[in-house]
Amino acid sequence: MALEELPLSRGFTLLEPGPVVLVTTSDGKRDNVMTITWTMVLDFSPTFAIKTGPWNYSYAALSESKECVLAIPTVDLIDKVIGIGTCSGLDTDKFEALGLTRTPARLVRPPLLPDCLANIECRVVDILDPYGIVVLEGIAACIDRDRQERRMLHAVGDGTFLVDGETIDRRAAMRSKLPPGL
Amino acid sequence: MALEELPLSRGFTLLEPGPVVLVTTSDGKRDNVMTITWTMVLDFSPTFAIKTGPWNYSYAALSESKECVLAIPTVDLIDKVIGIGTCSGLDTDKFEALGLTRTPARLVRPPLLPDCLANIECRVVDILDPYGIVVLEGIAACIDRDRQERRMLHAVGDGTFLVDGETIDRRAAMRSKLPPGL
Repeated sequence: MALEELPLSRGFTLLEPGPVVLVTTSDGKRDNVMTITWTMVLDFSPTFAIKTGPWNYSYAALSESKECVLAIPTVDLIDKVIGIGTCSGLDTDKFEALGLTRTPARLVRPPLLPDCLANIECRVVDILDPYGIVVLEGIAACIDRDRQERRMLHAVGDGTFLVDGETIDRRAAMRSKLPPGL
Repeated sequence: MALEELPLSRGFTLLEPGPVVLVTTSDGKRDNVMTITWTMVLDFSPTFAIKTGPWNYSYAALSESKECVLAIPTVDLIDKVIGIGTCSGLDTDKFEALGLTRTPARLVRPPLLPDCLANIECRVVDILDPYGIVVLEGIAACIDRDRQERRMLHAVGDGTFLVDGETIDRRAAMRSKLPPGL
């Protein structure tokens, strides 16, 4: 594992395919992590939206510290992803319980998850009530370029998960719609 | 092709995996359709968020009529998906130009796309400025259960697309987190 900086201009490409995401937070005393699948890209800068609320123990730390890390797990991590999503930081140290490695981020207090394919350090810029939409600005991104397993997970929402299959290249046809430099 | 009603309680499972989506609209005189990938589930009822704005010709019809259909295309439709995404309803009848079949929806004026895997009829319930987040309530859903090709597309954002691969079943482990009856 070797996390390398990823230009922020490519940060949105980590979330645009709609993968399951792990969100780390810190309340100043303890780190926590949650699994979410309700995310959206808002712009190329990059800005993201995630849906969460007080029913997630992480929400208090997220809304008060106004920082988080979005980490993108791959298929080999599915059991940890589900473990993180089915217990609560209220009564569990998920890092210890699930044997999760963490490492300091560059610009925010919540940790990076170096076992994931990529991590995006984010600041909370707005919370849109009553929808529970948290608007995040990505301020640093890194990716593990040496990783062999790169297939992401997509939650269906019924307890099944789709795994990335083949890649289709339509760069030529899409050229007019891509942001400059991508 | 035979579209069957899908219970609304399962509607969110069509968008949760993060597929490329086609959005049909109608301004009362003409139908239009756009390709979007910036979408998110907001709740199980189902409520969805999509990001769009005045730079999309469809936006005027969407914000004024307050109706649309979200259709989920599959990999065999990739060239139509890209064709829809790289021309504008301003100067093109996309249905004619791309040979797209449409059929009347049940509760809204924008048409269904029966060649897609599934369609969700929606009402606009809010538009969150300045973020260009359109909040949609799904009010009817249908799916083509006979369709052989069911693999959805996920845009990476750089002109490449990921296709659904294998499905992993974790229903047993996820039971405590699934909405009742799913």
